[in-house]
Amino acid sequence: MRCEVVAVGTELLLGQIVDTNSSWIGEQLALVGIDSLRQTKVGDNLDRVVAVIGEAVDRADAVIVCGGLGPTQDDITRDAIARVMGVQLELDDEVAARIEAMFGGRGRRMPMNNLRQAEVPVGATAISDPQPGTAPGLICPFTRPGPGGTPVAKVIYAVPGVPHEMTEIMVGAIFPDLQARAGVQAVIRSRTLRTWGESESGLAERLAGRITELDRAAASGDAAGAVTIAFLASGIEGLKVRLTAKAVSTDAAEALLAAEELEVRGILGPDLVFGLDDETMESAVLMLLGHTGLTLGLAESLTGGLAASRITDVPGASASFRGALVSYSSAVKVDLLAVPDGPVVSAAAAEAMATGVRSVLGADVGLSFTGVAGPEPQDGEVPGTVFVGLDIDGEVSSIRLQLPGDRLRVRQFSVISGLGILRARLAARLAGDATTDNTTPY
Amino acid sequence: MRCEVVAVGTELLLGQIVDTNSSWIGEQLALVGIDSLRQTKVGDNLDRVVAVIGEAVDRADAVIVCGGLGPTQDDITRDAIARVMGVQLELDDEVAARIEAMFGGRGRRMPMNNLRQAEVPVGATAISDPQPGTAPGLICPFTRPGPGGTPVAKVIYAVPGVPHEMTEIMVGAIFPDLQARAGVQAVIRSRTLRTWGESESGLAERLAGRITELDRAAASGDAAGAVTIAFLASGIEGLKVRLTAKAVSTDAAEALLAAEELEVRGILGPDLVFGLDDETMESAVLMLLGHTGLTLGLAESLTGGLAASRITDVPGASASFRGALVSYSSAVKVDLLAVPDGPVVSAAAAEAMATGVRSVLGADVGLSFTGVAGPEPQDGEVPGTVFVGLDIDGEVSSIRLQLPGDRLRVRQFSVISGLGILRARLAARLAGDATTDNTTPY
Repeated sequence: MRCEVVAVGTELLLGQIVDTNSSWIGEQLALVGIDSLRQTKVGDNLDRVVAVIGEAVDRADAVIVCGGLGPTQDDITRDAIARVMGVQLELDDEVAARIEAMFGGRGRRMPMNNLRQAEVPVGATAISDPQPGTAPGLICPFTRPGPGGTPVAKVIYAVPGVPHEMTEIMVGAIFPDLQARAGVQAVIRSRTLRTWGESESGLAERLAGRITELDRAAASGDAAGAVTIAFLASGIEGLKVRLTAKAVSTDAAEALLAAEELEVRGILGPDLVFGLDDETMESAVLMLLGHTGLTLGLAESLTGGLAASRITDVPGASASFRGALVSYSSAVKVDLLAVPDGPVVSAAAAEAMATGVRSVLGADVGLSFTGVAGPEPQDGEVPGTVFVGLDIDGEVSSIRLQLPGDRLRVRQFSVISGLGILRARLAARLAGDATTDNTTPY
Repeated sequence: MRCEVVAVGTELLLGQIVDTNSSWIGEQLALVGIDSLRQTKVGDNLDRVVAVIGEAVDRADAVIVCGGLGPTQDDITRDAIARVMGVQLELDDEVAARIEAMFGGRGRRMPMNNLRQAEVPVGATAISDPQPGTAPGLICPFTRPGPGGTPVAKVIYAVPGVPHEMTEIMVGAIFPDLQARAGVQAVIRSRTLRTWGESESGLAERLAGRITELDRAAASGDAAGAVTIAFLASGIEGLKVRLTAKAVSTDAAEALLAAEELEVRGILGPDLVFGLDDETMESAVLMLLGHTGLTLGLAESLTGGLAASRITDVPGASASFRGALVSYSSAVKVDLLAVPDGPVVSAAAAEAMATGVRSVLGADVGLSFTGVAGPEPQDGEVPGTVFVGLDIDGEVSSIRLQLPGDRLRVRQFSVISGLGILRARLAARLAGDATTDNTTPY
């Protein structure tokens, strides 16, 4: 089974958007063992899109077309696929009703253009976005005459260009359909350990021995060898260690992953690994707050609300999170948080902020961030200098960090580092160990 | 002149690397006015690379090939180009000497493989990396028989896949060569109007007449016709309207853009358009605060610090921004902000929060957000129900919004909508008009 990917959009050719969709689809195709030998980008021009899809269909069994499904005159993917299949477009009543209902639900009149999104090539199936949107994906099976006139089965898939809509439709409908058509048996599963407190090369060094063992096992055909380890630096999401297993069934792949996760957690230790897959540092902290029964309040200066924003991204945060005071002006620090006179980028200010916000918000734990995001120095400190203050039930401490990067990254690394410090303290408290863990990555 | 881009590398198809090179080259080609109608990614397979380059040469006058110039057996771009040109590879003594000298200079023995990098197709010119590396770029002019047997001039360029080496060779040698061959005069420039308050299809309807005029002008060869309009939905960044102009000089292109910007601003009106190019809604609000001399404090409930975080992303925000109170627990709303008893998702609560935070933070303007981010309903209101409260110097108001999407998008749309409301009010105040502008997108 061969599958090509076609990305449609003049903005891709003009470099206004980098085509990450094709990369993601290529990666997923490789994981399920489907060959993808060519990927093409083409602009919003009907003749050229028809030519590109037509040539791809000549070479491959399946073609995934990304983008060009919106409601405007520029969105010509539906028309192009119909031309390649040699059929007309027809209105899909169900899709049309869904689109009209969505506009109705918001109390808005539906622009007539949007009905274009309900047109599908004859013989195609529309896949609706599980979270009702206006751009359904398409599965378009058809046949063309092969050598000697025998009909050859082909399939064209269409997905929206908006990444989160694309991945949802790919995972929910298109990969299953593609695998069924391909008769693919191999199952690939992965899980990601999230870490903070060690650099990417440091992690690679710690795991070098294990990676060599896995390579050897793979070379010898050992079943356990079908696991690989990869690293991915992900900013405020931490440094990810991704385990990928290939096996004959989902159960076998999950068993390999479970064993490998234990192995890697054993090597890295509980201080470094804060979460699995979608678990963020924020969710780890909220879980520990729940276990300890403590509530949290934040005082944010250089992070400007980013830590609070990340914490409240987690559904159910209100159970433990009281709130935050973003003390961006020094007057607010002094008036509301009782920060003493002196430089606000300092351990003393960080500790006073933590204690002050605990009291103002009526929280058990106060966590504070003050520092220099840049680009200019402040209080004689260079950008990247950050103090994290912590007050747990009156036990006050602070840590100085020196973080790399620009304004954005300094703020992001501040948040994950500060929450990581709180996580270590809460974990130690739960374990009945009151010693301070000063683990920080920098 | 038409130019296609071919990116060579199995790692690109597997999604291990995102192909940013083609995007950059596409953008640069557009800027110098050379049409680029197709970009293709292909793996490290000689037959397939020959096929892809050969087809590109059939369609275009010039082809830029990225990657596959290294010293290993996988690096087959040189061989592929020679096959497409119908010539042999020959050793370029000068390049070979330079590579040997580089290894000698580092006190290392040169692996024989590296001499492969000194092989060039007969008739091609090697371009050395200005910072001596081992992968020279190539300029490969040749002719092929066209219609009626007349020879047609073609050119293939090859550049390394390492981005900084690629850009250096492109800028230093390949774009100048390409422009000279193309005799290109055309220059392309663009600017982006950022809007909020109307859907993508709504914007398209408002501008449909203007787009038709531009299409007609383009068809008739009118100079003003070299402007195009495109739309791009960008979440918390708003809905972008991008104007692109093609002209004989930078000045002419900028003049076309300036005229078109006025035209489009006239059609959309000042309420919808909040910024140009990199100007965010936050920077627009901060600029207006600066002009009015007012300071801002935020009270955030469902947005959880996201509005404050966006505002403090802007360097210099501290001039007008006092801070924020993230009142995530109801107790904080009551105790600190003096929100009266009753549902916290309500106009009354939003207005009390705006007034309360103005007082607590000592700000001139209080802006508040309360609502239901989801996934669960709250106070009998469905997810997406949001109240924005505003207190400017004691003049209090609120607006109810019904926003689409999941938790993340409800929070993002809340922030840009709320800041948009503040922007409209500040702009009206500056214009000496105190009437409330209730424009909201939902």
